[in-house]
This record gives sequence, C-alpha cells and structure tokens, in this order.
Amino acid sequence: MPRKIVVGVMGAGEGALPSDVALAEELGELIAREGFVLLTGGRPAGVMAAANRGAKRVPSSLTLGISPLRNDADDPDEEALVDIQVLTGMGDGRNVINVLSSDVVVACGTGGPGTTSEAALALKSNRPLVMLRAAPGAKAFFATLGTVHFADTPSQVLELVRKLTGE
Amino acid sequence: MPRKIVVGVMGAGEGALPSDVALAEELGELIAREGFVLLTGGRPAGVMAAANRGAKRVPSSLTLGISPLRNDADDPDEEALVDIQVLTGMGDGRNVINVLSSDVVVACGTGGPGTTSEAALALKSNRPLVMLRAAPGAKAFFATLGTVHFADTPSQVLELVRKLTGE
Amino acid sequence: MPRKIVVGVMGAGEGALPSDVALAEELGELIAREGFVLLTGGRPAGVMAAANRGAKRVPSSLTLGISPLRNDADDPDEEALVDIQVLTGMGDGRNVINVLSSDVVVACGTGGPGTTSEAALALKSNRPLVMLRAAPGAKAFFATLGTVHFADTPSQVLELVRKLTGE
Amino acid sequence: MPRKIVVGVMGAGEGALPSDVALAEELGELIAREGFVLLTGGRPAGVMAAANRGAKRVPSSLTLGISPLRNDADDPDEEALVDIQVLTGMGDGRNVINVLSSDVVVACGTGGPGTTSEAALALKSNRPLVMLRAAPGAKAFFATLGTVHFADTPSQVLELVRKLTGE
Repeated sequence: MPRKIVVGVMGAGEGALPSDVALAEELGELIAREGFVLLTGGRPAGVMAAANRGAKRVPSSLTLGISPLRNDADDPDEEALVDIQVLTGMGDGRNVINVLSSDVVVACGTGGPGTTSEAALALKSNRPLVMLRAAPGAKAFFATLGTVHFADTPSQVLELVRKLTGE
Repeated sequence: MPRKIVVGVMGAGEGALPSDVALAEELGELIAREGFVLLTGGRPAGVMAAANRGAKRVPSSLTLGISPLRNDADDPDEEALVDIQVLTGMGDGRNVINVLSSDVVVACGTGGPGTTSEAALALKSNRPLVMLRAAPGAKAFFATLGTVHFADTPSQVLELVRKLTGE
Repeated sequence: MPRKIVVGVMGAGEGALPSDVALAEELGELIAREGFVLLTGGRPAGVMAAANRGAKRVPSSLTLGISPLRNDADDPDEEALVDIQVLTGMGDGRNVINVLSSDVVVACGTGGPGTTSEAALALKSNRPLVMLRAAPGAKAFFATLGTVHFADTPSQVLELVRKLTGE
Repeated sequence: MPRKIVVGVMGAGEGALPSDVALAEELGELIAREGFVLLTGGRPAGVMAAANRGAKRVPSSLTLGISPLRNDADDPDEEALVDIQVLTGMGDGRNVINVLSSDVVVACGTGGPGTTSEAALALKSNRPLVMLRAAPGAKAFFATLGTVHFADTPSQVLELVRKLTGE
C-alpha cells in the first residue's frame, strides 16, 4: 500500500474571517471524503479548527495536526478535532514542516502573516500551492514569486489536488 | 472521539543488531494490534523499518514516520511502511519531535547515539520512557537521570504502555 | 555591557539581481560601521554574501550566519565572510531563527519566496520589518499584513534601525 | 580572515552542582583567553551562566547564546552575559543547533538529560566530544557509543580543543 496523500490547509487562527471559516469547513469535509489526510497547523482556532471540524463529519477521516506547542493542550473533556497530534515545540518553526509534509498546500482565504509564510515556503520547497479565494493583492504578489494555482471554491481545490497528485 | 494514543519506537538505523530488529518487528505488531499509532523516525532502516514492518501485518495499523529529510525518498515501486510521513527537513532536529509527539517513548534494544539522544530528551520533556532490553551500562546510566521503565519483552512494553497511558 | 544589537538582512541567494547585490553590499557596510552585528542566512550567494562582503570592509565588523546546512561548507582556502557560523541543519526551518534573532529584519530588494517567508515571519513574531526598495506589489501586499517600514536607500534603513532599536 | 572557532559548553541549568558551576566558570574564562567563541544554550542559569560569567572576565571575549526561547528574556537592568543571542523559539530543538555549531562540544560536569542529549548528538553529528569530570557511569556508557575525550581539569579541555581544532 502506498503512503497516504496529505493535503495541508493553511489559514488564519483567532482572527479568521467568518467567511473563511465557512470555506475551511467545507474544504476539510471534501478532503476527507476524497480519502486524503488533512494536515493543519494543529491549533484549535480559525481556519485550522474549521477544516478539522469539516473533516470529522466524515467517519473515515484522518486529521493530522502539526502543533507549535510542546505539550498537548487539548481539553480532555472536549471531542478532539485532530486524530494525530505531532507536537513540535517549535512555534512558527513548525510552518516549514506543515509545508514539507503536504503533497499539496492550500492557503485558505485571506490569511495573515503565518499563512503568507507558509505559502512562500511552499514555493521555496517545490510543493504545489493552491490559493483559495485569496485577496486580489495576494494573488498578484504571489504570481510574481512562482507557479500558483488559484481556486474560488472548495470543489475547485479538490479538482486541482487530484490533478496535482495524480489521483 | 479523543485523539489517538501514539507510541514512539526509537532505535538504531543501518547498524541495528539482528536481535534488535527482530524485537522491533514484534513490538511494532503488538502496538498496532492494541490500536495505538506507531511513531518512528521514519527512515527505511534498522529498528524503524522493522517496527513498521511488524505493524503493517495488522490491517488496521497506522504508522507515522517523522522523517529527517526534506523530500520523500520512498521508492514508489515498493510498498510503503509508513502511512503518514511527516517531512521535517531538520535532520536530527526531528528527534525532539519524535519524543514530544509520543505518549510513551520506547528505546528498543542497544541504540546508538541517536537513540540515546531521544531517550534523554524523553526525560527532559517529561515523556514516559521505556527501555526494552537495553545494555546494562545504559540501564545503570539512565536510571541516574530520571524515572525509567525497563522491559525485557515486547509484551512487557505493552503492559507498561497501557498502564502509563491509562488505556 | 548590554548584548549587541543584531540587524538581519534577508534577500535572494543565487538569483539576486545585480542592483540588489550592490544595495546589500552598501547596507552591510553601514550596519557594520554603526557597530551592529550583521545577521544573514549564511549562504555564500546573492544578497547574503554581498551584505557580509560590505560589512567585512569595516575592521570591527561582526557577521553572524545562520546556515541551513549541517556542516561547514566554507572553502578553507577562501577568506570567510561570516565570523560566526550557526549551523542549524534545518534547511528553511532556519528562516524563523533568522527573524527571531534580529532586532530589526531588513528585506533587501526584490526577494523571492525565501525572503517573503522571512518578512512574513517578522510580522508574525513582532520583529520590526524594513523593506528596502521592495517591488510595488510586495509593498502593497505587505502593508495589508501589518506595520512595515519602507526605505529607498541603505542610509534610510540605518536611520530606521537606530530609531526602532532606540540607539 | 577565517571564521572564528566555536567551543560549546553544555551542562546543567538550575540544578547544577556548585562544583560544576565553579568548573564552568574557570572553563569559560580559559576559552575566552584563548580567543575562541564560547557557545552555550543561552539560559541564565547553572553551567551556562557560569561559563559566560567566566568568559566575560576577559575583555576580548565573545559569547554566543543559542536560546530555547522566542523572545529576549534578559533583564535590561542587568549586565548581559551573552554578547550575541540567537533566539530559536524551539525549546530543546535548539540542542542540535548547539552541537552542530560547535567545533568542539564540551559536556561540563554531571549533566542531566539535556546535557546527555547534547553529548549524544555530538557523536551522532561527528562533532568532537570532550567530557569534563563526568560521572564514572556516564564515562563508561558514552565510551560504548563512540570516540569520547575525557578531561579532569579545564586546562586539559583547552589542550584537547587546541589539538582537535588544529589551532
């Protein structure tokens, strides 16, 4: 059996726009339905939490969180959103791991500085980068840095992921 | 659903003793049978490969490799031993991630310097440490550094893991 | 004696524009003249090498390289541009260290994906960010992410550094 | 001018024995007198602080701290012991950087788990390792892992460092 295909969803944490949170939830569900592993930055906030929440609607889903923390901060009384938690203890140093471990990197919505760093590292590391409903300025800027795939809907992202991974 | 329990198996790579390789294979199988995720350092050699090989005998197994590499070096023609590959690009810097991400750290057999660093980091990071058939000198030395659990067989390791994780 | 002030200069490596290389050389010299430590990503190419070359014109200069490599690749027959080499073995994982260790982060010229990741991580980590002769699209985009200082000449960068570090 | 030779001194933090603290202070002073850069794990405690204190008795000394923290925690009212602070934000993940960046790694006194991990990583990374007044059990154990140099006094360490670096 070949190893599983991993799709990384990057996006804002606490300050995420409600529209981006809704987008991430739909995207996470589609990734899980397709049988891909969902990778996020592992924090229980914003786009990361939403993508995991969407994926967990699918019983066969597998969600992987690459946490900046050193210790598990999950509330033991809560349902966990992440099946497997990789604790790095490296803060934003884990952003490069998010990117390297993803067969496709999806920047979801209007990300902040963290998402920008991950999108840039994807290009630096030759990982396919999909930007989902990015701001016009972000699209224009990233197009000058390398090959970027743009999508307007989660379904378009999934089409791109299938094409880019040869699935 | 709570997140999955992860058991990390650390041990020698290319230079592993045949007896330690056999031990790792049995240990990996037992970890998978119990429903735990098997974490290794992700390299296709020695104790790491053997533990994964043992686990893959169990259809429901889930194996996680924390690779020192930046790019996937799996031979696409081979059956993969690792279901999910976390690529860190950090060389031995990934040893600390191996340890932090394991609910229990098992040092399997007569490890070399890499395994020693992981056993020490487990104590530094307050992760429960089990040493399986360690050399007498290693046992004596590590007992001076902190609380270490010793085991002579893979079954004893599993008993300890169940106790230490409250499963 | 207080610890030394560190100014990080980020920019393209092999593909750097000749005009950005010239800019970096002048900037490195001014940083050294002012008595600041010059930090770069430690590779002997492009903006990094040029900034160090400029600094080494000043006898009292101190240059710090945060290398992505695991082993020293300096040619022993050459004059070294970096006084102190921090070897991380972490590839682009060292970008976050570049940023955290800089009292001010300067993105020099038209950077590629690596420089973009460092500029973004500076904002994420609350390190003051100065962009020196950035492309118009980059300026417009980064201004939406946080507080960025813009400069057109190395002298303007030094003025900003003095102001931002209270020197 | 070639880059500077870096000697890394590893040892216990808060729990360091008074005799090891005294040893580290003397060692740090000798390293600085010889013109080597002193590298430590950058925390203001135990062996790390003592080695830096010793070095700072020498006006020409240069001390480099590789901090596990993300932000500078130095008390601004205090005299700093570290001239250059590399902030990694990586916790014990910085141990591998301590080792890779040292031309010689010195484990000073009866170290705990952190020092053990660094001594092991030195062997793993082919950095020369000197153990200064290590406990008998540690000496016996590490001798089974690779080539280790043992010293009883700081002067003996310096002799070894000169020999190992060809200075």
